[in-house]
Amino acid sequence: MYPDSLKNLIESFKYLPGIGEKTAERLSFAVLELDDDQVDLFSDSLKDVKKSIHKCSICNTLTDLDTCFICNDSSRDKNVLCVVEDTKSVFLFEKLGVFHGKYHVLDGLISPLDGINPEDIGLSSLLDRIKNEKFKEIIFAFKPSVEGETTSLYIKKILGDLKIKITRLASGVPIGADIEYIDSLTLERALNDRKTIE
Amino acid sequence: MYPDSLKNLIESFKYLPGIGEKTAERLSFAVLELDDDQVDLFSDSLKDVKKSIHKCSICNTLTDLDTCFICNDSSRDKNVLCVVEDTKSVFLFEKLGVFHGKYHVLDGLISPLDGINPEDIGLSSLLDRIKNEKFKEIIFAFKPSVEGETTSLYIKKILGDLKIKITRLASGVPIGADIEYIDSLTLERALNDRKTIE
Repeated sequence: MYPDSLKNLIESFKYLPGIGEKTAERLSFAVLELDDDQVDLFSDSLKDVKKSIHKCSICNTLTDLDTCFICNDSSRDKNVLCVVEDTKSVFLFEKLGVFHGKYHVLDGLISPLDGINPEDIGLSSLLDRIKNEKFKEIIFAFKPSVEGETTSLYIKKILGDLKIKITRLASGVPIGADIEYIDSLTLERALNDRKTIE
Repeated sequence: MYPDSLKNLIESFKYLPGIGEKTAERLSFAVLELDDDQVDLFSDSLKDVKKSIHKCSICNTLTDLDTCFICNDSSRDKNVLCVVEDTKSVFLFEKLGVFHGKYHVLDGLISPLDGINPEDIGLSSLLDRIKNEKFKEIIFAFKPSVEGETTSLYIKKILGDLKIKITRLASGVPIGADIEYIDSLTLERALNDRKTIE
């Protein structure tokens, strides 16, 4: 029914997460309304991304260089390593602009139920790095979840012998949130981790 | 911060309606997870769509042929013309598979508040067609809205002299809907247009 090219475009949009038949159709029709320049940029950047983006050989962040813009930046604090679960987290922190240390990106979090074991998340390159570079603090910046906790505890256990300060992101009530809508686990942790007002 | 190709891809996704910064980032990262074949198809179909899709010279439906698959189909009922506001509606009806007549696609609906006047929606080719082809019935299949009503009434007025049956889609309570959540205008029309149970 649809012309072939349109059908292919709809199928392509459906490869992406959260995009079903209806949305794919809507987006494909929207492409028809775009300028030629916009479509060219879109089409070219799809291929470019796939061709040029790969993992930084040091920290595993996605980059189009040999080593990423953070590993290349000699002004970054070499004493602090922030370990994250994916590259998105790196860009998230970089947008904030408040962290000036180094990053290391794991290939996800340990999740035995999903068949993701410690050997699947690229821990060896993290451990090599921790042994070779002289970090004073390692921050685990995982999402607060069973998987995040498991991964933190697992790495902490392996690092047991090394004299390095190991921290995690604070958990608690998000700014602006209504306390009555916060889940009990978060509220419990916010209470346990309470801070002295100075 | 983002590698250039990734930045371009994020910008490209943002051209599409309903896609903001966060979603564009999420989709762009998802592209990195796709197979090479999928990305090639996606990239190629974007350019193909833009290059090959144009309007059918008879009915204005988007097609990659000279005339669309419906105008080319000699088995369609030549007595009934369904006038729709965009090509999406044609595919919508074709998916249902219950309408076997011909279509004519307008370039939108009359909407003076948005500066869209009768001369902007391609009425002349519709009127030419109605004069040349011997339709017995014309169905207005516009969305039930002020613009839809205005456009229906305007075309009906122009066609005043011609002895053709002119109909519109039935309005009323959608199947499965809860009557208490139906807006008053729809309910009023459903009451006015009530049908004898036979």
